[in-house]
Amino acid sequence: MNIYRYEENPLLTPLDVKPYHENFEVVGVFNAGVTEYNGETILVLRVAERPISENPNVVKTPVYNVNTKKLDIVEFHKGDGRYDFSDSRTITKRESGCFSYLTSLSYLRLARSKDGHHFTVEDTPFIYPSNIHETLGIEDPRVTKIEDTYYIYFSAVSPLGVGESMVSTKDFKTIKHHGMIFSPENKDVTIFPEKINGKYYALHRPVPKSTGSPQVWIAESENLLHWGNHQFLFGLRENMWDNGRIGAGAVPIKTDRGWLELYHGANKDDRYCMGAILLDLDNPTKILARSEEPILSPEAPYEVEGFFGNVVFSCGALVEGDTIKMYYGVADTSIACAEFSIKEVLDSLK
Amino acid sequence: MNIYRYEENPLLTPLDVKPYHENFEVVGVFNAGVTEYNGETILVLRVAERPISENPNVVKTPVYNVNTKKLDIVEFHKGDGRYDFSDSRTITKRESGCFSYLTSLSYLRLARSKDGHHFTVEDTPFIYPSNIHETLGIEDPRVTKIEDTYYIYFSAVSPLGVGESMVSTKDFKTIKHHGMIFSPENKDVTIFPEKINGKYYALHRPVPKSTGSPQVWIAESENLLHWGNHQFLFGLRENMWDNGRIGAGAVPIKTDRGWLELYHGANKDDRYCMGAILLDLDNPTKILARSEEPILSPEAPYEVEGFFGNVVFSCGALVEGDTIKMYYGVADTSIACAEFSIKEVLDSLK
Repeated sequence: MNIYRYEENPLLTPLDVKPYHENFEVVGVFNAGVTEYNGETILVLRVAERPISENPNVVKTPVYNVNTKKLDIVEFHKGDGRYDFSDSRTITKRESGCFSYLTSLSYLRLARSKDGHHFTVEDTPFIYPSNIHETLGIEDPRVTKIEDTYYIYFSAVSPLGVGESMVSTKDFKTIKHHGMIFSPENKDVTIFPEKINGKYYALHRPVPKSTGSPQVWIAESENLLHWGNHQFLFGLRENMWDNGRIGAGAVPIKTDRGWLELYHGANKDDRYCMGAILLDLDNPTKILARSEEPILSPEAPYEVEGFFGNVVFSCGALVEGDTIKMYYGVADTSIACAEFSIKEVLDSLK
Repeated sequence: MNIYRYEENPLLTPLDVKPYHENFEVVGVFNAGVTEYNGETILVLRVAERPISENPNVVKTPVYNVNTKKLDIVEFHKGDGRYDFSDSRTITKRESGCFSYLTSLSYLRLARSKDGHHFTVEDTPFIYPSNIHETLGIEDPRVTKIEDTYYIYFSAVSPLGVGESMVSTKDFKTIKHHGMIFSPENKDVTIFPEKINGKYYALHRPVPKSTGSPQVWIAESENLLHWGNHQFLFGLRENMWDNGRIGAGAVPIKTDRGWLELYHGANKDDRYCMGAILLDLDNPTKILARSEEPILSPEAPYEVEGFFGNVVFSCGALVEGDTIKMYYGVADTSIACAEFSIKEVLDSLK
């Protein structure tokens, strides 16, 4: 597999993004949805900001307040034994093992480009937390274009759980809210870009508690808003690069040989790679082939080091002829892009 | 609150149910959905059977095999330190904290009655595991009648997770499968018996892993098969009887003052009681009132002692004038019924 990482990588880093909140710093611009609109490449960026803390022993966490529509700042002392601060992303209550707060608040912001390499980031949020299901932020958007509408869906994070919510836009200015389409715990949804035998399909990634692993399921819909007939699709593989958790990545790409899904897989050490799976064109609940080795692994310095290192994580790709341009978040910090051949990917699947 | 427990309670016990599987014993007949059909009361029973084990140190667990369409028996020695056998219902892998097997297999069976007190149990299963999502059994059915169709939905349990699946019938002989309507982890679904402002509604109970508690959500649908616009509805209450886990119980009952939902709540010691919540008639996402004290608590000997004691758990009720006849599982072992006044319940809510 020939992988061409852009020379300009990382294309966007926190230094390219002006904080939206006063006295905050941008710690990540990553895991972006991608689409084309009016001849431009549009990235729907996940931007993560956190309050600046002068005291290294104090963690300040932002929480969206639905009443004031502003952020509250909750402070923790790192010596507080009730909480575990070892994961740079979360503050976890030791008693329950569940996270209580995130160390940053994510929301979505647009970046535009004429050439797909150089992006201009908008100054204000495009989609911002707005309800009780989003008080800890919104994350990891994907964009599916169907006819003239762009459906943008993302993880909605709150102490009530992590679900997947959706908005739509026709102009990347005004948005329509469609509520939560997959209830907690669920994320990493990708909606197929057309109906298949009269139905819409989506991949999704439930995280059950009592039993079961973070694996990929498929669901169907008539209207994109309501989903059912959930079926397990593909799972973790022991002793392989995707034995820890997996989830759909880019919106499925239609090829001659089937629907090509670029998905992420992490091993038990949280090293995130990108692989692929091929689904039947007429029946996407049927698996035709799957990557044995990752297509892309964290190797470049910007993929290995950062806020949460050793992560490549794609939420979207563009296709031009035989070329896939896969945009991907690196180390939960920045955004990169790599190109590779559809034919080579398909030939590599077993 | 005046509660009239039937003199015949428990109405059905494991002794009333002939095992369906050879060399198995029935350990529970409980948590039944209820409806009326052809002038009879029909209970859709959850029947739990387990392989008879001669050796008290050996636990035999049944697993449905989708290829052979029979049960495989997996044996565990109680001295196997990798597993925790302390919960009578589950075999839990210590490493993950997730259950790997159940100590019995549940499936659904019908019982019929002319008077609602004395039931005749059918000899064979009505709904039996049939796919990869049901290899560890199907549990806790509810029945919603809409026009001439009875929708029966239940927990589908497998190592892939616990979700909610649905079938329908018009005659309690043939069934149509509709697949999984709520993806893992989810159970305790109750579907409202009519459209409200053009949409169907359901209560459901996700169990998220990373953050969030087992609490009640509401979703909407146009066709009963596909569900969306998930919203958190009501939650655990600290220092109260329902501070551990809650879930919808009986199918919502339409009253003059609102939709009355009889729900179960457990405290942190797994003592399950039944309470009530009242939802707006025109907008069931709006809560009008809720029980401060349980309507029914495990007090009778058959409620306190059994396979998993201190549990009253209703999956359905019938209404006659001002009287609710609430059928309920007791101690994960048997079935009981209690009657009380709708007016008294409504008056008791705060």
